[in-house]
Amino acid sequence: MGSQTDNNDFSSGLKSTAEIVEKRLDMLLPSESELPVSLHKAMRYSTLQGGKRLRAILCIWGHRLAGNSYPEEALDAACAIECLHAYTLIHDDLPSIDDDGLRRGLPSCHIRFGEAIALLAGDALQALAFEILSRGARVPDENRIYAIGILSKAAGSRMLVGGQVADLEGEGKRPTEDMVKFIHRRKTAELISASISVGAALETIEPEMIEEIADIGRKAGLAFQIVDDILDQEGDASVVGKGLRKDDKRGKITWPAAFGMASSRDTARALVDECKSRIRALGDDGDLEKLFEYILERIS
Amino acid sequence: MGSQTDNNDFSSGLKSTAEIVEKRLDMLLPSESELPVSLHKAMRYSTLQGGKRLRAILCIWGHRLAGNSYPEEALDAACAIECLHAYTLIHDDLPSIDDDGLRRGLPSCHIRFGEAIALLAGDALQALAFEILSRGARVPDENRIYAIGILSKAAGSRMLVGGQVADLEGEGKRPTEDMVKFIHRRKTAELISASISVGAALETIEPEMIEEIADIGRKAGLAFQIVDDILDQEGDASVVGKGLRKDDKRGKITWPAAFGMASSRDTARALVDECKSRIRALGDDGDLEKLFEYILERIS
Repeated sequence: MGSQTDNNDFSSGLKSTAEIVEKRLDMLLPSESELPVSLHKAMRYSTLQGGKRLRAILCIWGHRLAGNSYPEEALDAACAIECLHAYTLIHDDLPSIDDDGLRRGLPSCHIRFGEAIALLAGDALQALAFEILSRGARVPDENRIYAIGILSKAAGSRMLVGGQVADLEGEGKRPTEDMVKFIHRRKTAELISASISVGAALETIEPEMIEEIADIGRKAGLAFQIVDDILDQEGDASVVGKGLRKDDKRGKITWPAAFGMASSRDTARALVDECKSRIRALGDDGDLEKLFEYILERIS
Repeated sequence: MGSQTDNNDFSSGLKSTAEIVEKRLDMLLPSESELPVSLHKAMRYSTLQGGKRLRAILCIWGHRLAGNSYPEEALDAACAIECLHAYTLIHDDLPSIDDDGLRRGLPSCHIRFGEAIALLAGDALQALAFEILSRGARVPDENRIYAIGILSKAAGSRMLVGGQVADLEGEGKRPTEDMVKFIHRRKTAELISASISVGAALETIEPEMIEEIADIGRKAGLAFQIVDDILDQEGDASVVGKGLRKDDKRGKITWPAAFGMASSRDTARALVDECKSRIRALGDDGDLEKLFEYILERIS
């Protein structure tokens, strides 16, 4: 029964943290009445759609793990990361990229606001992410600069955008292990890693600590993407809440396509177990450990 | 004759500074051999096309005006601003925005590399701008954070992107004075202002100095855009080096359309004169003054 209570506490902790993030995002985004109205409506539409807020929670809990001296600033950093994530989803959905008309069960940004406004809303959300991170004067400047360095690298051509390009260019090609590792590391894992390490970096820039946290985040991020690939193939659309079987239709390079389904499950499990034991060694109070387990939950 | 020599010195100063910026950009951009090759080729293609490098020079000379303690870092900041500017040009040219197939006499990025790669190259160039600004450890962290704050605000939905949206949404509408002021301030003037104030901010964050420099930059930027509007209407395409008469065809909101041609010339002249006298009062050695005059040169 204790474990059941723990799990309920954990789930409600997740949910309440996601709600706090949503409220703060609502304040950080320009209001709908500010000119140009269409742009600000589009930015808010695509950023305030709820969701798990996994990246934001990783940032907030990463900061807590490292000492939690600046919880308000960590919340803002978490919102900055959500803005950046929202921009990538808007651009991914555009006709020239994945041409996806639905996002979280709602019309994609470009369907609702047109392609030009969607493109520009994404651009503005990326700038807003860095603007938010540049504020927060209670955090030492050194830490804020370090956090901006982490996020800008993760968002750049060698990571997130590079992964998106490799993902697009890989469509229809025979999936190799090298290709899927290249894509998943860049397209997904690095921003998840950046989320937890930006949170930690607001407290400490001690290289060993940051490196360890970033590497755990990278492995958790890879597990997350592998689970996503598995769900796309085997999930129940009504439970997962988005259109499935898209990867096959597009000939996307996925982990199961390169390694097989059984091996994908084993790898996700092993990655999560490794993340849990390494985060415990850093003094996690149990929440990050549960969060890593939660990544697997949907397929277990 | 002295003034002729001065002008020659000034012109060669401009040219040699632009060449230094070009060389440094070439080093700061990922090489063409780095994966994904298409992405890095597109980023380099659109950023290394030469040009006047007005924004970069404003950043470098703004830093010189404020004390010039970190010339190498100011050069990097100048390159960061050029990356940001290049991203805005790539996205502006996309079919869903201005649908422009030519840029500086060459095929636009999306004509050369396809729409998806062009879009993503722009995204990565924005991230790279902030990554470059987050480096440069000799500059006090406080100054770097301040500079990032200036540039991220200038790039955001309330400024640059907001101006782009207003410009698009204004097409075909009757131009009013309020509309053209709203658009020009945001679309053009604020990034030119940010260029000179980012350079200054690497040296000083004394609010009065930064505010004065930023405001001079805003006026110079407005003059620049008014001159651009005049040239679009009256210029000689072979001299200006780009397709002209586009504003009319698209029904763009321009300064001459709102205020008339004669008044536009007078306003540009008056703005430049004001910039010159205010920058002299800040101890400019004459170069920024000449640079402001140079903005007008093409129509005088």
